[in-house]
Amino acid sequence: MPQFERHIFVCENVRPPGHPRGCCAEKGSPAVRARFKQLVAQCGLKGQVRANMAGCLDQCERGITVVIYPEGVWYGGVTLADVDEIFTRHVQNGEIVERLRLPDKDTANKSQD
Amino acid sequence: MPQFERHIFVCENVRPPGHPRGCCAEKGSPAVRARFKQLVAQCGLKGQVRANMAGCLDQCERGITVVIYPEGVWYGGVTLADVDEIFTRHVQNGEIVERLRLPDKDTANKSQD
Repeated sequence: MPQFERHIFVCENVRPPGHPRGCCAEKGSPAVRARFKQLVAQCGLKGQVRANMAGCLDQCERGITVVIYPEGVWYGGVTLADVDEIFTRHVQNGEIVERLRLPDKDTANKSQD
Repeated sequence: MPQFERHIFVCENVRPPGHPRGCCAEKGSPAVRARFKQLVAQCGLKGQVRANMAGCLDQCERGITVVIYPEGVWYGGVTLADVDEIFTRHVQNGEIVERLRLPDKDTANKSQD
């Protein structure tokens, strides 16, 4: 049995400025995770939902990457403005936010960083 | 559909030396993750399995913490000597290594760090 109803991983990988792949941290992923954490607390979901920092999820070119388990849904190009929608629709109601979802072909069969 | 068959998260949180909760990094979690990555590569599982760095998983007192999705199985007190067994039994064969598993009560209902 999974121990959180939903476990949110937000990439906070940091690369040096000017790196050709960029990184999620420079695009603002710490603020994205902070907002998820804030919503978890506000909605009384501590212990049921956890918003975790993750290292590189290897989707660097697509903007901030978030993966939510147990569904294993990957979101790309997430901005701070998207977090409330992902939280309300997916985390609370189990509905995937299709407009931000990364298709499977982009996350499978890539080399480990 | 999950985009990796198994997604391994290894806590690599770092706290200052002497912190009362300790941290996974000081116990050797980077080497644990490196061994998972090595096994993924050696077994030709890149693209199917990913070994990811994670921030604090809030089980600091239990030693190195690893969570594997999509099952949502939490392992605690993991040492470098345990990695090959977790990899062979769980990652490759879907069998949970019960002697290292954290019971649900220890990971649920804790406050967000």
